[in-house]
Amino acid sequence: MIALSFSKGNGLLPAIVQDHRTGKVLMLAYINEASWKKSLETGETHFWSRSRQEIWHKGGTSGHVQKIKEIYVDCDNDTVLFKVEQLGGAACHTGFETCFHQKIDKSGEATTVGHRIFDPEKVYGKA
Amino acid sequence: MIALSFSKGNGLLPAIVQDHRTGKVLMLAYINEASWKKSLETGETHFWSRSRQEIWHKGGTSGHVQKIKEIYVDCDNDTVLFKVEQLGGAACHTGFETCFHQKIDKSGEATTVGHRIFDPEKVYGKA
Repeated sequence: MIALSFSKGNGLLPAIVQDHRTGKVLMLAYINEASWKKSLETGETHFWSRSRQEIWHKGGTSGHVQKIKEIYVDCDNDTVLFKVEQLGGAACHTGFETCFHQKIDKSGEATTVGHRIFDPEKVYGKA
Repeated sequence: MIALSFSKGNGLLPAIVQDHRTGKVLMLAYINEASWKKSLETGETHFWSRSRQEIWHKGGTSGHVQKIKEIYVDCDNDTVLFKVEQLGGAACHTGFETCFHQKIDKSGEATTVGHRIFDPEKVYGKA
């Protein structure tokens, strides 16, 4: 069993989520040891929500879970890469396919790229 | 100019580096505000080295710099994605193309995948 260096990040390490077919980077979230084990056990991504301070089963509310296809760990054992099938077609809570939908130009200005796959008010009932 | 939320990470935010052609995730490192600005100004990735506590021009020693082709920022302004051309063909200081060369199976066991592109002893002169 690989030993991740959770102590390096005060108990939290970054986990990159990538679409296993398109190679698009979908999001980055944080794992603690419990959410890492839960991800391995269930085959679906689980993170630690820094804002809610609890284990977060991605897609638990929206149904847009991430089925883990492959897992990689980096050379320092302090970052995880999940290659997933993203159910619902969008990883971002704003409805975009990827959280990385702000493209930055050389002067540092942001432009929104892509479009919404779902309406977050409908999915999360915040209307 | 986009305002990254450096305060969220006590001054440091994760930056994912992805090969702009193959889509492979090469590495993750951390940026502070100075290294972020330096990356924008120079078109080459600069990070904050947590071990050396200094600005780190990736490839400054090995010559394997990363030419920035595209930059994305996530929905929370707290993670950066650099799409790069990796000179020398390998991002990892161990000589592998990607730092993510440990594949994890369902029981959590690691297997090394891929092969060394360069010999780190020759590149870094540690022999």
